[in-house]
Amino acid sequence: MRRTITGFSNPTVKYLRSLREKKHRKREGRFLAEGLRLLTDARESGRLPELLVMSTARSDHPLLSSLETAVIDAGGDVAECAPEILSKITGKDNPQAVAGVFAEFATGLDTIDRGSARIWLVAQALRDPGNLGTMLRTGDAVGAGGLILIDDCADPFSVEAVRASMGAIFTQRLAQARWDEFLAWLRRGDGQLVAASLRDAQPYRGAPYNAPCFLLVGNESRGLPAEYEDACDLRVTIPMRGRADSLNAAVAAAVLAYEALAAVEN
Amino acid sequence: MRRTITGFSNPTVKYLRSLREKKHRKREGRFLAEGLRLLTDARESGRLPELLVMSTARSDHPLLSSLETAVIDAGGDVAECAPEILSKITGKDNPQAVAGVFAEFATGLDTIDRGSARIWLVAQALRDPGNLGTMLRTGDAVGAGGLILIDDCADPFSVEAVRASMGAIFTQRLAQARWDEFLAWLRRGDGQLVAASLRDAQPYRGAPYNAPCFLLVGNESRGLPAEYEDACDLRVTIPMRGRADSLNAAVAAAVLAYEALAAVEN
Repeated sequence: MRRTITGFSNPTVKYLRSLREKKHRKREGRFLAEGLRLLTDARESGRLPELLVMSTARSDHPLLSSLETAVIDAGGDVAECAPEILSKITGKDNPQAVAGVFAEFATGLDTIDRGSARIWLVAQALRDPGNLGTMLRTGDAVGAGGLILIDDCADPFSVEAVRASMGAIFTQRLAQARWDEFLAWLRRGDGQLVAASLRDAQPYRGAPYNAPCFLLVGNESRGLPAEYEDACDLRVTIPMRGRADSLNAAVAAAVLAYEALAAVEN
Repeated sequence: MRRTITGFSNPTVKYLRSLREKKHRKREGRFLAEGLRLLTDARESGRLPELLVMSTARSDHPLLSSLETAVIDAGGDVAECAPEILSKITGKDNPQAVAGVFAEFATGLDTIDRGSARIWLVAQALRDPGNLGTMLRTGDAVGAGGLILIDDCADPFSVEAVRASMGAIFTQRLAQARWDEFLAWLRRGDGQLVAASLRDAQPYRGAPYNAPCFLLVGNESRGLPAEYEDACDLRVTIPMRGRADSLNAAVAAAVLAYEALAAVEN
């Protein structure tokens, strides 16, 4: 169905705005993604928005026209609104010209086919949605299969995580699990578990990474619990030449992932 | 001087809150930093806050007591307020127990002693303050000398950049310059300029990095202008194995910096 949203108090605007909050996302099982590029990545990955919202100030673009047609053909809705309304929905001063509402994905470990990629990223208790999205983006870049979120992490479907992922939310696999559940799953098949660690670790450079390689980084403040590190097959450390003793979690994951990539591609 | 701030409408609260906005920071030449760890890094780097604000809910800590004494001895002010007021000042729901107001630093290229480090990070038109802070943090980790900001970048003294730097705002050198000015400065001495690039570039891994090595990354959306890339001594590319064609800017800088570190330490 096609329609036009004319006022800020329109129920659809309220609904879309509500998806910026986790409790509403979880109740609805829906999330927001902005920008033609992300929506195109989604479509190419087989995911269409249920509702496509377009700014009246958008430029014509063949990808947008074909997306619009695809949404209608699939029985979805297309709505048009003023850029100010889109700005209110997405919380950005300069909103993208288009946004979409998607159904959240299943994120069980059973969605992961470990043999489909040589690298998998794993994050434990990651709190920052920007870091989470950046890890998805890095995962795409290194050809990882996806991101596994252990224990209580930021919501991967938050606007910030989706935005930082630059589309990788749609192209990387995503799983969520408690540690015990993850470890039991991992040990039922092939997989080397590698921790970024400062304790009893070898240099990350030239370490014996083996595919499928699961690269685990811990919480931004506390790092990994000692017992989690102990359960890993390999602990590697990234040199710290300055005063600080840690990197940003997404940066640490990327430095490790590119080193592991060089090893598993050889 | 020691005092207590009792109300949200106290002029000091208004002043401190105003420092979250760039125009007020520039007018005052002052910025905010939060947390005992950052303030301790600052002190160890020879910088004391002019005003130290402490929560009444703080725990005793010897580093805080000695910081308090140092601020008073240097003629600065110490104020105490309720955690809700500190929350309002810093814009964080769970504020750190302490914050400080610092004078902004000089950021001319003449503050850079290029021979003092083997790696320098350079960012062009970097728009995200979190990326900027993360680059400072990474710079500290790889033993870089500092970060040089080219053209119009996010404000390194913003609350978000200072927070993401995890103290490196105080320990890394920081310079700001237009491109022409930077290039002229660079060519007056030793220094290899290396661009992260997709064009006419060699693999970043094993590339011939030489100290002092200046690693240049471009704007988050547009990358580097072609003419800037052309002026570099070396263009290197980070493999992209997925659908996207770029990494987060701070991630790209870190992947390059760790590779360069391995080269220049050998």
